[in-house]
Amino acid sequence: MNYREVEAAGEYLASLDNGADWREEIEALAERVDADAAWFNAMGAVRDAEVWFYDQEDQEYRSVEFDEPLEVAACVGNVALLEGDRFAHTHAVLSRPSGQSVAGHLNAATVFAGEVYLRAFETPLEREHDEVTDLDLWL
Amino acid sequence: MNYREVEAAGEYLASLDNGADWREEIEALAERVDADAAWFNAMGAVRDAEVWFYDQEDQEYRSVEFDEPLEVAACVGNVALLEGDRFAHTHAVLSRPSGQSVAGHLNAATVFAGEVYLRAFETPLEREHDEVTDLDLWL
Amino acid sequence: MNYREVEAAGEYLASLDNGADWREEIEALAERVDADAAWFNAMGAVRDAEVWFYDQEDQEYRSVEFDEPLEVAACVGNVALLEGDRFAHTHAVLSRPSGQSVAGHLNAATVFAGEVYLRAFETPLEREHDEVTDLDLWL
Repeated sequence: MNYREVEAAGEYLASLDNGADWREEIEALAERVDADAAWFNAMGAVRDAEVWFYDQEDQEYRSVEFDEPLEVAACVGNVALLEGDRFAHTHAVLSRPSGQSVAGHLNAATVFAGEVYLRAFETPLEREHDEVTDLDLWL
Repeated sequence: MNYREVEAAGEYLASLDNGADWREEIEALAERVDADAAWFNAMGAVRDAEVWFYDQEDQEYRSVEFDEPLEVAACVGNVALLEGDRFAHTHAVLSRPSGQSVAGHLNAATVFAGEVYLRAFETPLEREHDEVTDLDLWL
Repeated sequence: MNYREVEAAGEYLASLDNGADWREEIEALAERVDADAAWFNAMGAVRDAEVWFYDQEDQEYRSVEFDEPLEVAACVGNVALLEGDRFAHTHAVLSRPSGQSVAGHLNAATVFAGEVYLRAFETPLEREHDEVTDLDLWL
């Protein structure tokens, strides 16, 4: 395992805009507070969601779209630089009225309401291509 | 998106009482450490749970009750003032013996065992009525 | 509820090794940074997973094995001493290509890729046998 000690550059609470994109809002927050590295937690609700699953054999993402309102029961992620831009790697657990849940890599989702805690770090994180997984990983 | 930089007033680990209510225990912790704003993470197990889903069209919460033991696989939330009282806005992902999971806004649940990390902030958060969503939001 | 104020001894980001065990990697991180108490968040993907559910009546863990690639949509846990060794109490929400999710206490899982934020605390946490739940709890 590779690891790095980090130092906080600032910590933030944010309320996401109704109608905006969930991941883009988090990237906009990172932009506003000038964070090239951050860890975040979030919760709320979305009007729809596009969830990705990484096919480990074919090394490609598979997309599933949920065109329905969902609670964001848990959202965990981090911000790093990907080809020079801030990218919020976002995973989420979403739920339906029955409580049934779906989860995965959250590519896009329309915010209904969202509450975020973001912790920015001093040292930038940069994603680089990893040969074993064919993913862009940091450290 | 609205955001605020926050400063930590203290951070705490807590072990919740068997038989108590999950959310009330977190609110009692906030009370004990005098936190009017906090972010938390938790995990554990409950004997039962009442999970809410917000109907975005009718703008009302729908409740589902699970009268069975469940693992708390992930719990994310925050503490803010709601009409003058500390309210722990709590989302959780719960699971059954098969691993099947249910999730949503956790209104109530009887603690079997619970481990919590709570980070209190200096500046109070206050929830106010939001016209678009008909929810009480902060910031 | 029992609680303790904690002070951070350091905070770390880690990237877990492909092919290693998810929980052992987190315990190795705690070892490397000399943390006898920590809280962590993680996300990523695994090749398989062994998830436990605690039977609250029989007071025994039930195991379910998933021999398939899964996203780690959310992972929450903490590090404490258990009989003198560092133990990473790890809960996780995992998901399939359809988005369907399973969750619980994560005993073991083979890392495909994993990103971790770990916050180490100054004062050690020690797990001790709890008579009510027959679990090893801290505080």
